[in-house]
Amino acid sequence: MRMVDLIHKKRRGEELTDEEIRFFVNGVTDGSLPDYQISAFCMAVVFQSMSDREIATLTDAMAHSGDEIDLSEFGTLSVDKHSTGGVGDKTSLILAPIVAACGAKTAKMSGRGLGHTGGTVDKLESIPGYRVELSIEDFLKQSRDIGVCVIGQSADLAPADKRLYALRDVTATVEAIPLIVSSIMSKKLAAGAHSIVLDVTVGSGAFMKDIASAEVLARKMVEIGRRCGRNMAAVISNMDEPLGHAIGNLLEVEEAVGVLKGEVKGDVYEVSLELAAAMLSLVFGISHEEARKRADESIASGKAFEKFKEWIAYQGGDTACLDDTAKMARARFSHEVKSPESGYITRMETEAIGNAAGLLGAGRMVKSDPIDPTAGIVLAKKTGEKVKKGDVLCTLYADREELFPAAEKAFLGSLSFGKTAPEPQPLIYKIIR
Amino acid sequence: MRMVDLIHKKRRGEELTDEEIRFFVNGVTDGSLPDYQISAFCMAVVFQSMSDREIATLTDAMAHSGDEIDLSEFGTLSVDKHSTGGVGDKTSLILAPIVAACGAKTAKMSGRGLGHTGGTVDKLESIPGYRVELSIEDFLKQSRDIGVCVIGQSADLAPADKRLYALRDVTATVEAIPLIVSSIMSKKLAAGAHSIVLDVTVGSGAFMKDIASAEVLARKMVEIGRRCGRNMAAVISNMDEPLGHAIGNLLEVEEAVGVLKGEVKGDVYEVSLELAAAMLSLVFGISHEEARKRADESIASGKAFEKFKEWIAYQGGDTACLDDTAKMARARFSHEVKSPESGYITRMETEAIGNAAGLLGAGRMVKSDPIDPTAGIVLAKKTGEKVKKGDVLCTLYADREELFPAAEKAFLGSLSFGKTAPEPQPLIYKIIR
Repeated sequence: MRMVDLIHKKRRGEELTDEEIRFFVNGVTDGSLPDYQISAFCMAVVFQSMSDREIATLTDAMAHSGDEIDLSEFGTLSVDKHSTGGVGDKTSLILAPIVAACGAKTAKMSGRGLGHTGGTVDKLESIPGYRVELSIEDFLKQSRDIGVCVIGQSADLAPADKRLYALRDVTATVEAIPLIVSSIMSKKLAAGAHSIVLDVTVGSGAFMKDIASAEVLARKMVEIGRRCGRNMAAVISNMDEPLGHAIGNLLEVEEAVGVLKGEVKGDVYEVSLELAAAMLSLVFGISHEEARKRADESIASGKAFEKFKEWIAYQGGDTACLDDTAKMARARFSHEVKSPESGYITRMETEAIGNAAGLLGAGRMVKSDPIDPTAGIVLAKKTGEKVKKGDVLCTLYADREELFPAAEKAFLGSLSFGKTAPEPQPLIYKIIR
Repeated sequence: MRMVDLIHKKRRGEELTDEEIRFFVNGVTDGSLPDYQISAFCMAVVFQSMSDREIATLTDAMAHSGDEIDLSEFGTLSVDKHSTGGVGDKTSLILAPIVAACGAKTAKMSGRGLGHTGGTVDKLESIPGYRVELSIEDFLKQSRDIGVCVIGQSADLAPADKRLYALRDVTATVEAIPLIVSSIMSKKLAAGAHSIVLDVTVGSGAFMKDIASAEVLARKMVEIGRRCGRNMAAVISNMDEPLGHAIGNLLEVEEAVGVLKGEVKGDVYEVSLELAAAMLSLVFGISHEEARKRADESIASGKAFEKFKEWIAYQGGDTACLDDTAKMARARFSHEVKSPESGYITRMETEAIGNAAGLLGAGRMVKSDPIDPTAGIVLAKKTGEKVKKGDVLCTLYADREELFPAAEKAFLGSLSFGKTAPEPQPLIYKIIR
């Protein structure tokens, strides 16, 4: 089998056989295929796409290209969630204890963030003492004992995707449904959960900019996950402004604690509960309404927050600062950003707000960059709110005062003001089961 | 400027600026662009094509990427021909002395063949003593003195094309009009001739399999050549059977000598004269008919053959074997292939016949392979001829008898027989000026 023939076949728009797709993935994994053939193939896929059968085989082969986590001891109770990304998205911190409190198993591997803010693992690591690196044995034991464990992603999870993604990133072949789906789903399959809920975000802070495209992606991922034997659902959620008010690692932990304590409501509560409901509905085969009720009760009863503390403590984290968030570490400096005009906030360029948080030290541009756990932004106002000139729009947090001017400029540049309130948008556009 | 952005722009179907195209070609030439970005870009071009302006800039930039031959001292008299390839195509050997005898200048660089048979330089080298490597000074002096010189192609002619072509060959991105045009035309531009005639072949022995596609390619090359300041014409010719009867380096020289002596007529004479007429018509601004008349006369008067000998002698070649081809070297062994059935030859798979010649030692698979100058095939019958079972179809020539069985099998496999004569096909489909 020659790769050049496979590229030509895809170029002509023909379907590859399973054997041909596995030949490709093996060659990506073992290094026998050169970068230039892989990138030409990806570009051919951009234009000619792939059938569901091809994508499922590609995804399955990539999932098998490295380490795979065996969660079979948990039967149908294991559940995972994946988000296509956003700003201020701390839902994983909230969902994991909720679904564990309701009897499911969240044995989850999570990535570090590359970009404006940290990933789930970075957020957890901002809690003093929390250990993100456990052996697989300890990871499974903890999941067995308390139903929840979140650790850093194995370096060898879907290595075929790692090589493919790095190439796609520099060859303008990121945006292609078969490649996006196989990249996301191969890692989720390798991570082992029986049920998977996909949070497909849409808007100015998301990879997908319109609902129709997000739905196409969501339906395709659900279909491919099912073909690969998993229990699937997808939630299409609004990321046209940051989720919640906190952006930055420890600041987001604090907001998540607020939600788990029942003190914080609003969008972040609502989206978290919908995602938790989708997860519980899949795991227990119950209606979305019944699942949502159980999730709500886990918060109202305090069980979810107790589970959160149990989890953090199990992984070595300090829970005193969770009981009393006044004990949390704070950035050395803070700076209030005042509104330059009066009117309604009509739009927030969410990615630009993420970048402002990045300028304060909340994210990293390259893997080796350190993250400042206390840096970030807390919004005082969000889209649709009326403000007067001079009102505080947000507070910036950083370890060095000289970081504020650029971040303030980026933040203010992200806002649009108008004389009338914008039409309110739904938080959840659609749930796909 | 980032290459990934240029790839994305082309992926979206947008036109690149001249600056962007030159950035690309510079990066290909100096090695600063990695193979994977180049191949992804080529695949994007396969699907989104390029405007004439983009192709002209690409071609011009590639032509300037390495050595360029300055033929300006010959003014508008310099003329070159390029063929998109065929089997038994010895027209360059015939054209060069004809147009030189008529007063034009053929200062030509020619490639070695990679494939079933040799290139023009390999054919010339089969004449004992012929030197294909001259300094540029000697090359120009000879052209000045006698109007004709053919040497091997400079290793640094259009190096951007060299790298691009090597990548396209292994990434299924060969077939794309902008890339084919820029590859061919960049080398022709760098080779310096003011007038260029393109022989675009069509049929079972050609890269282009149908007349419509060949015409699209021909018109595009003519347009791009004109945009780059050259005097252009294209001839679309029939390559649905081998041209002439001889296939193999020295065997083809012998047939070319026959044409120049006025002894060999038929397809190879006809196509050569039409190409010569197209060249002379461009150079002297005369009608095709007038040009054809001059070409014909150069043969009838013996001037073309005298020019041929003058040329070969100037480059050190033995002309005794040209005056008397009985003195030419012969292969140690020959073998007649007999017809397995009676009827008309309805079709010759020309590429397969080329491959049969390759099996006898007439070509090379890799650059370092030696070529046997005497190996090859002389056809006794061609398409449309009636044969009886047992009639000689062709004679095979080789240095080792054990090469005959495979070549005979390949040759016979290339023929189709039928009860009725096939419709005769034109030799020249179209001349584009």
